[in-house]
Amino acid sequence: MDSVFLAEIPWPEAERRIAAGAPVFLPLGATEQHGHHMALGVDVVIPTAIAERAARAVGGLVAPTVPYGNRSQPRTGGGPAFAGTLNLTAHTFALIVRDIICELYRQKAHKIVVINGHYENIAPSVEGIELALDHLGRDRVGDLTILRMDHWDLVQPQTIDRIFPDGYPGIELEHASVIETSLMMALRPELVDLSKALHDGPAQFKPYDRYPRPMEEVPPSGVLSMTEGSSAEKGEWLLADCHERIVEIIHVEFGKGKTR
Amino acid sequence: MDSVFLAEIPWPEAERRIAAGAPVFLPLGATEQHGHHMALGVDVVIPTAIAERAARAVGGLVAPTVPYGNRSQPRTGGGPAFAGTLNLTAHTFALIVRDIICELYRQKAHKIVVINGHYENIAPSVEGIELALDHLGRDRVGDLTILRMDHWDLVQPQTIDRIFPDGYPGIELEHASVIETSLMMALRPELVDLSKALHDGPAQFKPYDRYPRPMEEVPPSGVLSMTEGSSAEKGEWLLADCHERIVEIIHVEFGKGKTR
Amino acid sequence: MDSVFLAEIPWPEAERRIAAGAPVFLPLGATEQHGHHMALGVDVVIPTAIAERAARAVGGLVAPTVPYGNRSQPRTGGGPAFAGTLNLTAHTFALIVRDIICELYRQKAHKIVVINGHYENIAPSVEGIELALDHLGRDRVGDLTILRMDHWDLVQPQTIDRIFPDGYPGIELEHASVIETSLMMALRPELVDLSKALHDGPAQFKPYDRYPRPMEEVPPSGVLSMTEGSSAEKGEWLLADCHERIVEIIHVEFGKGKTR
Amino acid sequence: MDSVFLAEIPWPEAERRIAAGAPVFLPLGATEQHGHHMALGVDVVIPTAIAERAARAVGGLVAPTVPYGNRSQPRTGGGPAFAGTLNLTAHTFALIVRDIICELYRQKAHKIVVINGHYENIAPSVEGIELALDHLGRDRVGDLTILRMDHWDLVQPQTIDRIFPDGYPGIELEHASVIETSLMMALRPELVDLSKALHDGPAQFKPYDRYPRPMEEVPPSGVLSMTEGSSAEKGEWLLADCHERIVEIIHVEFGKGKTR
Amino acid sequence: MDSVFLAEIPWPEAERRIAAGAPVFLPLGATEQHGHHMALGVDVVIPTAIAERAARAVGGLVAPTVPYGNRSQPRTGGGPAFAGTLNLTAHTFALIVRDIICELYRQKAHKIVVINGHYENIAPSVEGIELALDHLGRDRVGDLTILRMDHWDLVQPQTIDRIFPDGYPGIELEHASVIETSLMMALRPELVDLSKALHDGPAQFKPYDRYPRPMEEVPPSGVLSMTEGSSAEKGEWLLADCHERIVEIIHVEFGKGKTR
Amino acid sequence: MDSVFLAEIPWPEAERRIAAGAPVFLPLGATEQHGHHMALGVDVVIPTAIAERAARAVGGLVAPTVPYGNRSQPRTGGGPAFAGTLNLTAHTFALIVRDIICELYRQKAHKIVVINGHYENIAPSVEGIELALDHLGRDRVGDLTILRMDHWDLVQPQTIDRIFPDGYPGIELEHASVIETSLMMALRPELVDLSKALHDGPAQFKPYDRYPRPMEEVPPSGVLSMTEGSSAEKGEWLLADCHERIVEIIHVEFGKGKTR
Repeated sequence: MDSVFLAEIPWPEAERRIAAGAPVFLPLGATEQHGHHMALGVDVVIPTAIAERAARAVGGLVAPTVPYGNRSQPRTGGGPAFAGTLNLTAHTFALIVRDIICELYRQKAHKIVVINGHYENIAPSVEGIELALDHLGRDRVGDLTILRMDHWDLVQPQTIDRIFPDGYPGIELEHASVIETSLMMALRPELVDLSKALHDGPAQFKPYDRYPRPMEEVPPSGVLSMTEGSSAEKGEWLLADCHERIVEIIHVEFGKGKTR
Repeated sequence: MDSVFLAEIPWPEAERRIAAGAPVFLPLGATEQHGHHMALGVDVVIPTAIAERAARAVGGLVAPTVPYGNRSQPRTGGGPAFAGTLNLTAHTFALIVRDIICELYRQKAHKIVVINGHYENIAPSVEGIELALDHLGRDRVGDLTILRMDHWDLVQPQTIDRIFPDGYPGIELEHASVIETSLMMALRPELVDLSKALHDGPAQFKPYDRYPRPMEEVPPSGVLSMTEGSSAEKGEWLLADCHERIVEIIHVEFGKGKTR
Repeated sequence: MDSVFLAEIPWPEAERRIAAGAPVFLPLGATEQHGHHMALGVDVVIPTAIAERAARAVGGLVAPTVPYGNRSQPRTGGGPAFAGTLNLTAHTFALIVRDIICELYRQKAHKIVVINGHYENIAPSVEGIELALDHLGRDRVGDLTILRMDHWDLVQPQTIDRIFPDGYPGIELEHASVIETSLMMALRPELVDLSKALHDGPAQFKPYDRYPRPMEEVPPSGVLSMTEGSSAEKGEWLLADCHERIVEIIHVEFGKGKTR
Repeated sequence: MDSVFLAEIPWPEAERRIAAGAPVFLPLGATEQHGHHMALGVDVVIPTAIAERAARAVGGLVAPTVPYGNRSQPRTGGGPAFAGTLNLTAHTFALIVRDIICELYRQKAHKIVVINGHYENIAPSVEGIELALDHLGRDRVGDLTILRMDHWDLVQPQTIDRIFPDGYPGIELEHASVIETSLMMALRPELVDLSKALHDGPAQFKPYDRYPRPMEEVPPSGVLSMTEGSSAEKGEWLLADCHERIVEIIHVEFGKGKTR
Repeated sequence: MDSVFLAEIPWPEAERRIAAGAPVFLPLGATEQHGHHMALGVDVVIPTAIAERAARAVGGLVAPTVPYGNRSQPRTGGGPAFAGTLNLTAHTFALIVRDIICELYRQKAHKIVVINGHYENIAPSVEGIELALDHLGRDRVGDLTILRMDHWDLVQPQTIDRIFPDGYPGIELEHASVIETSLMMALRPELVDLSKALHDGPAQFKPYDRYPRPMEEVPPSGVLSMTEGSSAEKGEWLLADCHERIVEIIHVEFGKGKTR
Repeated sequence: MDSVFLAEIPWPEAERRIAAGAPVFLPLGATEQHGHHMALGVDVVIPTAIAERAARAVGGLVAPTVPYGNRSQPRTGGGPAFAGTLNLTAHTFALIVRDIICELYRQKAHKIVVINGHYENIAPSVEGIELALDHLGRDRVGDLTILRMDHWDLVQPQTIDRIFPDGYPGIELEHASVIETSLMMALRPELVDLSKALHDGPAQFKPYDRYPRPMEEVPPSGVLSMTEGSSAEKGEWLLADCHERIVEIIHVEFGKGKTR
């Protein structure tokens, strides 16, 4: 029971590590279409893996990944029309984050690192943290620090340049595309089958949303940009970037050295 | 990608199976203390495993397990005082169930089986289903059937008698005790270390709840009853009972034969 | 105006008694079918009467009974299909309990005893208390004690044995059956007409819930178990048990002697 | 079991009367200070009694009175500073009304008469009805009629003139004053003790509200206007007016004759 | 940038004035029909103008007017059947007021004056303030004062007598009638066209509400009382009354002299 | 009363135009710091002006601008630390949008164009629209089209290149910077005073959020990027781009020609 996953250790061990100052990582995922070539769990796998590696390096703990995310939107995730995309409302999602943050604080875990892996979770994860602070009382939580990060923001610009020599389409369009595909090839290659990729992108979105009619601009495959050029090697570059950056951030924010 | 887990298949495969009539299992778990001898993820492991086996047998799919449960209470789960017990409020939990049921229905998954593994989830999972029906409109969902079951209710009385020759303490007190320990020994033995069990139970609860002072009646270990006599073999008896019963229920409720 | 009911005394008298340390009882009821032989108000009558007797004995006050309860479910109360069963959602019910607890606390009533009379109220009454504590701030209510009890849990095992010489079906199935019928015969005999009882039970429930189709396992009368053997005398045994136990609990938790 | 109170009849009788077209009355009350000379339950007693008489006359049913009301305000009810005033938030109160209306509709009670007895309930009872209509779907409830009335609006101007020969202070100031005191003397004289009245009114309110400091303009007794001149006879005049008016309204809105 | 409107000054100027003790006015409006002869924005124009004048006189600031109000009701505003009446639910409206009050407090604006211009906003603006106090903690906001006023309550009785020599119909019926029309003629004459007035009032309302059928008692024009006799001069009388009263209230409540 | 603003026309005119097919524009703003050199109302002014011009061109109507926005965040708007930034919670903001959309639909305005002017409103405006569709029933609103656009997305790439010859910092950093400053110089020059600009940017943000400690990376002025090079002329380029694009979008989505 030497795991960094909270789910895999008994409570006295959790208590010991929290008392020793272990940062607690909270990965936020989603169950969402990621093209014909990848499984629906991509947004769970990636932030969980990033959190696991980081927790190992800094003596942290990883709370269970929230496996359902805020509503997928056509311009950033393909939207709800794809089978298997199971959305929560923003309010539900924010309440989950609020409740977990409050519980972690109550249990004296005062170094919290939220690692998000789903674009549409950005806003409601911010809201969930703000609601937790409202709930706990901002003037009464002086010793609490919550860091919230989206894994794609942790990648160095030069890595992006190496991966996209012809130009980066931007993270919104990167859904189920080279970044996520490469990360999955590095982490869970059995959940990727590039031979199934349709290559029907990139999406040419209009600069607005339309409801309730579906956006016909979403490529039929659900891949918003492209999958060509994805590789496990590129996935390792991305993971290395994320990892180095997180470890550096933890040291800057929470003090140097492993806490365990 | 032959998995029964929705998270491990791409969306076209999810679409195909749902169209073919696959029942979708939704396991409901929790992150909660289970004594010194078991990991915090017990309530996630058990209903997920039961759902996986059942889905394999009947051609079903398993949606991601909800890994956070409704507030643990002293008399049924030890309560919030134990490190690592991360509770959701009942309203948040019910909204999660509501949202997922609505999404499954919208995606034409009209045979839904909710498998619960955490005592305090019973009431808010009922509420979540009721809220979903309110939301969808009870008069407009004629083709929807939702079955909700708590795994301990699926065990045959004679199996309980075999496991508890000296009398069954009742499911409320069975927290982290022989049933859950045996199931975990069968499913994930590496998450059980019986040598760590404190044997400080069984709890002698008063017939009422007291707030906000903690209930000193909870045994220090968090085990409400006892762990003695737990074994992987008994875990297999319990799993076999659950499995047979679920398969039978699926056939009765949704028609005969595997759907895949 | 010597009543123990808050509704029957003027505010200065309420103020005086609260200042003198009177525990405040909050009965939680429901408006729900109780068979052909009993009125819809059974779950209001019983906890109100128990609270009244207890308040008289210990110098307490009785706040108005909440007359609408959380959703009746088929396996424990017959469910919503019976005329006159008027359900609240769990969220509404929990908010009522939260609001009243907060108001009592604000008014310096810091000894609160919640007496529940409806099975489906158990979980949302717990939630309402927890929400009140969240709202008030658990670290700021050191002098507050809330006791929450379900009246059937206060009965001694030997009394149950006396009433059910052939074995106790369990409280879930006891809906509108011997316990409630006997209590009503003792308390409000004019609301009971045993000659109308259908004797179509006991219910043979499957070990799971099914939505939205009604559970055809519910006996047509709405009585889940049986009414035979009910008597006012047994009702008095039950009331006496409840009464003794509550008085004892009040003395243990709040100190001995009448407070008035 | 010939009662008009839903709580006092069994479900088959409720079913029979609803099927026969019985209007269902829903009284809305409060637990609120009403001076030194009246009990805290005034706002429950009055609308319940009015509903009972009306139901007897028109073959209706009376659902349980909601005994907790929306927050008392200083300028209309004295405010929360008085012991025993137990307020609900407006949202909770509106949800109660919403839930009950929805349940009545679901049970085919499509003639609903809401009788309000507490000033601050006006707005949230409107909101509760509106929320119920939003919930049920306004275009799908063609056969539903909900009437909402505040009992003081049912009194004839000439009766007001008879009771207040020196001028009517207006309903906001009539809290715990001549109207309510007279009604209580007619209905529940044992809950009135005019010798305890302080005669410290009428309140001279400023034309605005101030928060959170208490309004020192509220007379210490809690009586906003005056009690002098209250009598059971005047109470009977008021009850007679209400009664005639309601019966007339029922006939106009729901058709002539008793429905039973 | 010498404006009193928060929207028209930069943040350092807002900071300076708040630090100097400027009261902050929060006008509450609505978008609601006001007859054939007036624009839909009447309830925004009037409280904004009153707040502006008052803020100029006392060195205050005016926060942006909330331009959407709580649900219009037939008996007080004509109801939702008129085009352009855009209602918020009471809960949404109360949350807006709660959020803004909390933000003003957080920003050290502790003298807050809520000026309401829409009848149906009364109750939910009270609720919004109460929710803010619940949220902030009543025992922690000793230096906060919130005044809440409805502009029509600030008019002197003698002015009402001058304007209505034949008797005042009461504020509920004054919707889109002489008071509001005169105020608009004084403030924004280009938004009034008396030649379009239908003169189909006054409304003869029954003493109860009916849902969901529309109230046919509402005059077709939407004017509940009458417009005859409206004039800019009378509007100035009303504005002068409001102004003098508010300035006096500010001096009484917050100390004398301009704060700027 | 020839205005396009709903607030400036009477209800019969609103009814006429909606019946004639007028699209209704709903501008979404905020009250938020925009540096030393601009007023707090920038996010209200810009989308209102864009909507006004568009409505004039296409025969549309403009509903009142929502003047309070979702919580400002440090990395995109400077955050809550600046005086005058008055935030709503995401839930409140989404409910406002939900309610208004539902009301417009109910009033037969089935061509709705939401024009957003505040970065943090993006997600909750999406959520508000989704909640409205959930509320109305997606299968029952076939004739409803809602377009949602953020004004900065309507600018042509070549215009961005003209304005930012040295490279575009991206919309997140453009807060209170060249785009917004130029737009305000074109629209409301009296609310801009470039001489007050501090030139302390651009912000060098870390790639994550930190709570609750303030982000010291926010430049003291609140300007996230830079103001140099702002001009009314550039503002006109931006407005022209937005205008052309919106008119084109309206024609594509709602059919050609002015509707009035």
